[in-house]
Amino acid sequence: MMNFIECELLRVFIGEKEKLHHRPIYELLVSEALERGMAGATVFRGLLSFGLRHKVHTAKILELAGDLPMVVEIIDSTEKIEEFLPVLETLLREAGVEALVTRENVRHWTT
Amino acid sequence: MMNFIECELLRVFIGEKEKLHHRPIYELLVSEALERGMAGATVFRGLLSFGLRHKVHTAKILELAGDLPMVVEIIDSTEKIEEFLPVLETLLREAGVEALVTRENVRHWTT
Amino acid sequence: MMNFIECELLRVFIGEKEKLHHRPIYELLVSEALERGMAGATVFRGLLSFGLRHKVHTAKILELAGDLPMVVEIIDSTEKIEEFLPVLETLLREAGVEALVTRENVRHWTT
Repeated sequence: MMNFIECELLRVFIGEKEKLHHRPIYELLVSEALERGMAGATVFRGLLSFGLRHKVHTAKILELAGDLPMVVEIIDSTEKIEEFLPVLETLLREAGVEALVTRENVRHWTT
Repeated sequence: MMNFIECELLRVFIGEKEKLHHRPIYELLVSEALERGMAGATVFRGLLSFGLRHKVHTAKILELAGDLPMVVEIIDSTEKIEEFLPVLETLLREAGVEALVTRENVRHWTT
Repeated sequence: MMNFIECELLRVFIGEKEKLHHRPIYELLVSEALERGMAGATVFRGLLSFGLRHKVHTAKILELAGDLPMVVEIIDSTEKIEEFLPVLETLLREAGVEALVTRENVRHWTT
């Protein structure tokens, strides 16, 4: 019997090349989530996007500039997600990068 | 302080090879969203799917036919998403292609 | 006019290398969903994740071990999704693998 628990999915859309202290932001976000014991974090790479000051990121541009859209997905309770938001905000501000962030209600279950 | 705003995530699942006027549908959808000033649009490539008349799209088939599943994700207010739906529907009908489309409520925030 | 129907999106996060009877779990899940006539199923590959006993799956590890995170997304009515859950649970238990599973409410439409 799978018992699903109410939680939230936080998604952070950011450029693949965006860095802080020479490390990709998406990787830093996964590290921060791991350190905080969040339930899960996964990174996916897109092939085309806009939304960050309407720059278009494409796979073609990647070949030149390596800046494809990435989405970092973090899953945990609303409480844990809300504790993570200031970490995210500080990290984005320090790096001076743009990001689109979404939150949504999901239910989760783990083996 | 991150203030999240209620909005919607529109997702369009479509074959990578589907075209209209020699342009991929997923690229046309991103262009249309960009022209209409939507908050964001991102395209991801899947590696296996069915759902479009139960054809199975796989990475192996891609090597032969180049038709992997793609998902175009568009984020904006319900109002802007609803204005976008007729554009989407017209485009799909003109191209005569199949698509699976989903909408869901999310909250978004941008830097 | 696009009429959207209430349904659910089931997402299963699992390692690319996880297998049962020599077949990848993500592929088995798509097969099972197809056999049961679910509305749609799509598989995406991530490039970095944790969440399954906090092992970190990365693209670098992939080159060595081929174990990237995968997400299988299945869309159908709540009823059909609930009928699918025991199939999923049995499959995961037989394979003895870890997975993170989420459910969320979406509305869907097909051409």
